[in-house]
Amino acid sequence: MSKRLAGRTLGISPFYVMELLRRAKQLETQGKDVIHMEIGEPDFATPETIVEAGIRQLQTGEVKYTPAAGLPELREKIAEFYQQRYSVTVDKKRIFITPGASGAFLLALGASLNPSEELLMADPCYPCNSNFVKLFDGKARTVAVNADSRYQLTAALIERHWHEATKGALIASPSNPTGTIIAPDQLKQAIHTVNALGGCFYSDEIYHGLVYGEKASTALAFSDNVFVINSFSKYFGMTGWRVGWLIVPEEFVDATEKLAQNIFIATATHSQYAAIAAFDPITLAELELRRAEFNKRRDFLYDALLGLGFDIPIKPDGAFYIYANCAKFTDDSFQFAMDLLEAEGVAITPGKDFGLHEANRYVRFAYTTSIARMAIAMQRLERFISRG
Amino acid sequence: MSKRLAGRTLGISPFYVMELLRRAKQLETQGKDVIHMEIGEPDFATPETIVEAGIRQLQTGEVKYTPAAGLPELREKIAEFYQQRYSVTVDKKRIFITPGASGAFLLALGASLNPSEELLMADPCYPCNSNFVKLFDGKARTVAVNADSRYQLTAALIERHWHEATKGALIASPSNPTGTIIAPDQLKQAIHTVNALGGCFYSDEIYHGLVYGEKASTALAFSDNVFVINSFSKYFGMTGWRVGWLIVPEEFVDATEKLAQNIFIATATHSQYAAIAAFDPITLAELELRRAEFNKRRDFLYDALLGLGFDIPIKPDGAFYIYANCAKFTDDSFQFAMDLLEAEGVAITPGKDFGLHEANRYVRFAYTTSIARMAIAMQRLERFISRG
Repeated sequence: MSKRLAGRTLGISPFYVMELLRRAKQLETQGKDVIHMEIGEPDFATPETIVEAGIRQLQTGEVKYTPAAGLPELREKIAEFYQQRYSVTVDKKRIFITPGASGAFLLALGASLNPSEELLMADPCYPCNSNFVKLFDGKARTVAVNADSRYQLTAALIERHWHEATKGALIASPSNPTGTIIAPDQLKQAIHTVNALGGCFYSDEIYHGLVYGEKASTALAFSDNVFVINSFSKYFGMTGWRVGWLIVPEEFVDATEKLAQNIFIATATHSQYAAIAAFDPITLAELELRRAEFNKRRDFLYDALLGLGFDIPIKPDGAFYIYANCAKFTDDSFQFAMDLLEAEGVAITPGKDFGLHEANRYVRFAYTTSIARMAIAMQRLERFISRG
Repeated sequence: MSKRLAGRTLGISPFYVMELLRRAKQLETQGKDVIHMEIGEPDFATPETIVEAGIRQLQTGEVKYTPAAGLPELREKIAEFYQQRYSVTVDKKRIFITPGASGAFLLALGASLNPSEELLMADPCYPCNSNFVKLFDGKARTVAVNADSRYQLTAALIERHWHEATKGALIASPSNPTGTIIAPDQLKQAIHTVNALGGCFYSDEIYHGLVYGEKASTALAFSDNVFVINSFSKYFGMTGWRVGWLIVPEEFVDATEKLAQNIFIATATHSQYAAIAAFDPITLAELELRRAEFNKRRDFLYDALLGLGFDIPIKPDGAFYIYANCAKFTDDSFQFAMDLLEAEGVAITPGKDFGLHEANRYVRFAYTTSIARMAIAMQRLERFISRG
């Protein structure tokens, strides 16, 4: 180990699924068919209206820096979107366009988190979230959650785990990997608890829009004193464009602007112009069709996994994941995933990519592939399980 | 001041030129003609070959995440470019594609700099460089430089200022704001000094290619044990695309890859495909024409400023800046810049955006506008000065 490496890098583990992916590639090179149910990226192409807007911008040839906070038109569109979809008024100067939700996390934590300060977050959760905390030499204090709270932090859990070094709490709803949504009341209480404690509340809303029952609530419905992280990647189908947004409490506007100037200069220009088209009625209609398709996939996969004997205490509300308990089949879900890939060419993500709490008993299935492909995957999975 | 703000944000100042830009916008709204000589962005559009490659990629509709380290083809092209242009062999696994040079700095410092560690850098230098250090709660120890060392750090200066907390040294060549290049021997000695001290050497090479005499040397010519930051923004004319690259020492490859996965996921896909076309012979021929035009502009502006009585101890070798001593006219270069804007509609950047050392005696002129426009600017400047 090099002594020159920054200490923070030691706390950041690579994703375990990468090992699986390497093996999947090898198998595919050997001509084996691999069904990818590990991928956190919609399989749909970016809607044409968005692509065309991006192309139109490129055709001007003027692909110059935008303001650090983003194109004013896009910030305006986002403010309108909150008004229309959530009936929430957001001052557009609190909205920052970022290189994906990743950039939003960088800004939010860069502006608020000091070294050694701690952030509360659920276990399981998306691993990058805790790694952003480590990037700024803070500590991710993960709190084991389970089906009782829909795998979400609660006000009570926040209070119980809050201590002197705690800076705030992060809630992701719909959650990755569990797909569960926090109930509006619970979200409101969690926010008010954090605010009362004088901390910062971070709401990861990147899977908003991809919900199959009740709509997810935005934290902005309950307080202006929150950080909201969102992205055009998932619902809007713009992963590779790398464009997202961050909404900050008023008192963080100046600091966030300074940071954005310094650490990004700006988000990719044509991606921002393309994103404006994401709010066109034609685009939104297309996205709703996709949502319906994801809904069908969720239902298919949920029933299939239950039928095979996986335990799924809550039917996921959104995102495109099912976090399934595989304890009936294994006490080592990583080995289970590796063996399944090896034997049957089905790739899934091991629980330990999402935390420590019962991680060896869980795997994540992503329904970012067609029902036809998933049906084959389920046959293979059944054969794999029945072999024991 | 909010107690919730991260301490690091206090040390990061906004760019003073922003104040000037706000006023410039007001004046333009009032119908006044402003000649922009403050802009650090080429006025040329992105070369058509590059734009077309970006459009072709978008037309596929498949704008998905690339690997975190970047498209293998692009990393390969960059390795080839080092071989062709510098006769340097770089293992492509050491090359990471990033969202601009900004992303390269984030990765390089994220992987190597601990809180409280210090980085030596020249004063004057580009303000973001020291702000990246502050982002990771390190300290930028700026070292006053002057014309004797071509405004560059030297091995002797590095040794003199090195102490227990020093992690490394950063050299930017060509430099922003001075446009000066470090001599190959000096660069070699600086690198060897840092390596002998067990530190990290960071070479900011984002203005490579934009040189009007001797070629700038890459740090890689003298050691593999260096971080090299580069970008498609300046020479390749791709500012708004946000794509750059970082080359790391072998021992940092794994940590950098982990960080890239976590803090970017990936750089914008179409920007990466477009960047592949940056190395096409047709593109390079076009870029050489632009370089010739920048060369003419530098000569024009250099002569004009000298003629007006500005002191420019060294004729700049590269980039598109002239850092001119205006002490003959003022002892407050910020006020000088504001007054010049107000009276004559010429926008330039005050020295204090680049450090503390004699900052009040310097202003930066960018020749990112045509000679015709600069000729008018010089007439206005002459009138302004003669008024006293």
